[in-house]
Amino acid sequence: MPIRDDAAIEITAFRWVPDFAQGLVRDLRVRWALEEAGLDYRVEPLGFERPKTYLQQQPFDQVPVYREGKLTLFETGAIIEYIGEQHEVLLPRDRIARARAIQWNYAALNSVEPALQGLAVIDAFFKDEQWAALRRPGAEDFARLKLKRVADWLGDKNWLEGDRFTIGDLMMVTVLRIVRHTGLVAEQPALAAYLARGEARPAFQRALADQCAPFRANQPEGELV
Amino acid sequence: MPIRDDAAIEITAFRWVPDFAQGLVRDLRVRWALEEAGLDYRVEPLGFERPKTYLQQQPFDQVPVYREGKLTLFETGAIIEYIGEQHEVLLPRDRIARARAIQWNYAALNSVEPALQGLAVIDAFFKDEQWAALRRPGAEDFARLKLKRVADWLGDKNWLEGDRFTIGDLMMVTVLRIVRHTGLVAEQPALAAYLARGEARPAFQRALADQCAPFRANQPEGELV
Repeated sequence: MPIRDDAAIEITAFRWVPDFAQGLVRDLRVRWALEEAGLDYRVEPLGFERPKTYLQQQPFDQVPVYREGKLTLFETGAIIEYIGEQHEVLLPRDRIARARAIQWNYAALNSVEPALQGLAVIDAFFKDEQWAALRRPGAEDFARLKLKRVADWLGDKNWLEGDRFTIGDLMMVTVLRIVRHTGLVAEQPALAAYLARGEARPAFQRALADQCAPFRANQPEGELV
Repeated sequence: MPIRDDAAIEITAFRWVPDFAQGLVRDLRVRWALEEAGLDYRVEPLGFERPKTYLQQQPFDQVPVYREGKLTLFETGAIIEYIGEQHEVLLPRDRIARARAIQWNYAALNSVEPALQGLAVIDAFFKDEQWAALRRPGAEDFARLKLKRVADWLGDKNWLEGDRFTIGDLMMVTVLRIVRHTGLVAEQPALAAYLARGEARPAFQRALADQCAPFRANQPEGELV
């Protein structure tokens, strides 16, 4: 269990988020990487009202922030890459394999996530608005196209670059989870199997349990569960 | 002039794109990094109909692809970081400064670009649709918020991490250009000055000229300029 109050690494995470975000908040990605690397960490819990000074560490007012000695990082993709750089289990040392794994970390965040997030934001925040009803079919098609691109690339490979799990897979799996409220991933059997393969990793399961435990403990009274 | 037919590095780029995309297509980012690093490159020009085999190099069917010996990379953020790793002028060697610069490369692509792209896509592709008219004010506010976050971070610094230009600035400047058809950047004087500072770099100017030269040469007959 790598959550330890005296750990050298600290991350920020929310005390509580609504159901639709539980298991999606981005500290999950960092927890998973730390679990794969066997690194202890501690957690600074945050409420929705952050002090203004938080912006000096996280200019976009989100979670997580990653702190390790004199280093503070705020962007999830960069945190995952940084952890990977120090732990070959997440990022190959070979020059080409390394560049390819980093490439998939960026691809998950820039070529796939925006399309899936576009759909998820409609469903989570705007579903009663007229524009959202009109736009949803197009947003779904765009998400479906991106997922098909990833599925076509994967084919029958276990992981994006073949037999070896890397930071690129870690990021892609957590990105695919953004549309877990839809049937889009299930439409692509290769992708569904890939997602299941990622989520079955013990390190992922520990990270997920550790993100969600405080949400149950801090459930606001009167909130629908 | 680093475009040279016998260069070791090759990138793909479009022969022609419509006006709204000229100076935005992502090979600009890679050309700029290569110019900053003083590296020669050659260009494989592509039409809008790519052969199916292109997906084996670029699973999302976009430009650019970067080729250097046995290495092929397709994701712009990863290409920029790869070039930076070999050229200190773009990426500091100090462990912390390096991680912070890489962080801004990711932040430009994942914390800023999706919001700006959301607005630009409405304006470029959907402006006659009802959902777009209804959504535009919200999309603009979201883009404005992200720009304010960057402007607040910048304050009176020259570059995102202080006095030194890095890959993070290169990416952020090209991301800001996505909303060049609006007044959003001009609303934030610190950001407008930062963008102008980036665009004034001779390496940027060469990259921009080299991207756009073929567009003029390959302008389809009968197209409005």
